[in-house]
Amino acid sequence: AIVAAAEALLSPAEKPLAGRHVVVTAGPTHEPIDPVRYIANRSSGRQGFAIAEAAARAGARVTLVAGPVGLPDPPGVTVRRIETARDMLAAVEAALPADIAVFAAAVADWRPAEAASLKIKKDGSGKVPPLAMSENPDILSTIAHRTDLRPGLVIGFAAETNDVLANAEAKLARKGCDVIVANDVSAGTGVMGGTENTVHLVTKDGIEHWPKLPKDEVGTRLVGWIADRIGKS
Amino acid sequence: AIVAAAEALLSPAEKPLAGRHVVVTAGPTHEPIDPVRYIANRSSGRQGFAIAEAAARAGARVTLVAGPVGLPDPPGVTVRRIETARDMLAAVEAALPADIAVFAAAVADWRPAEAASLKIKKDGSGKVPPLAMSENPDILSTIAHRTDLRPGLVIGFAAETNDVLANAEAKLARKGCDVIVANDVSAGTGVMGGTENTVHLVTKDGIEHWPKLPKDEVGTRLVGWIADRIGKS
Repeated sequence: AIVAAAEALLSPAEKPLAGRHVVVTAGPTHEPIDPVRYIANRSSGRQGFAIAEAAARAGARVTLVAGPVGLPDPPGVTVRRIETARDMLAAVEAALPADIAVFAAAVADWRPAEAASLKIKKDGSGKVPPLAMSENPDILSTIAHRTDLRPGLVIGFAAETNDVLANAEAKLARKGCDVIVANDVSAGTGVMGGTENTVHLVTKDGIEHWPKLPKDEVGTRLVGWIADRIGKS
Repeated sequence: AIVAAAEALLSPAEKPLAGRHVVVTAGPTHEPIDPVRYIANRSSGRQGFAIAEAAARAGARVTLVAGPVGLPDPPGVTVRRIETARDMLAAVEAALPADIAVFAAAVADWRPAEAASLKIKKDGSGKVPPLAMSENPDILSTIAHRTDLRPGLVIGFAAETNDVLANAEAKLARKGCDVIVANDVSAGTGVMGGTENTVHLVTKDGIEHWPKLPKDEVGTRLVGWIADRIGKS
């Protein structure tokens, strides 16, 4: 009760996202090959969870759609745990309307065309048939191109291993979103699975380079940046 | 020092694997598709870690070769952390000679034929080329069929979703090992990622059915079973 009373006394500047609904995605998706095998992306979920937590601290109602990660629910955040890209899109759509969407998950672009219902066995031939793949729905592009219930601010992430900024600028245009948060996840950077991140905010107005920061701090700064932008709109 | 003194006073029956070297594998393997994507098996590593810990408690020198899992090193166990099936085989071979080998890992049977060095991008066609796959080395069969440095007792695991015992008996013969520990990992059983396991010990002499037990208890009982068998040999 004391905490609630203290929070009620905070100035609007300290709860700049009060009354807003923020949807955040985080973590990898797992795309089943059969009951025991799957395709996954490397992602600890830390960056997305940090953003969700920072948005809740800023007063927003937050829905976090999270793939399989070992992180606990952030305080004050509604968490939907899903496994596949298709489930993630469905959970995001179910969470609309939202004022802001931040797609920080490392969604699998492809999935095995058919998940086998029984464990696939080696046939003893020593040969392996190629795995037929299907393209997954593009969650960022799907939500950014909606004609109804499009969140006012749609932010995508671009995890790249080469041509980071050029890829991010192309992605901004192609996906129809408002911001791309680009980062270099090459093995040497330690970003994937690590606790720090160096990001670049790409908008149609240009590129903002941020220094290397703890992922928590990237979350806090990104939420501050969002609050500024929402305040001006 | 008091613990060491107390341990030194234990009867041989309580340290039945003293002087023995046990190699255990545990967890999944991750097979890279590109820097951010991989194929994996569902495996928490709990059963293998429990066996390694029980073997150390029974006085054995234990080498645990573990795929990517979130479990801490068991006390008194030398842990080698690896990622791929090929790395796991190399780590097992480097650990020989051993008296006993327990292969509890969920090793990927296949890997992408070539891991891309840069992140694979969608080409905008909406089409996805099939993923060419190569067969991984069979660690259980390779070690069980060695003509030099074959451990005296080679134990494999069979995680099955159907025809559990028939598949296990066929595997025992095909792999050249001494024991198959078979379990049903169908979705409904909760074994995968869970804390309990129902196993069946398949040898050329027959099948021993164990009740549903915590994975720790399966580890302790299996080590007791191994000690009995080693004692008789």
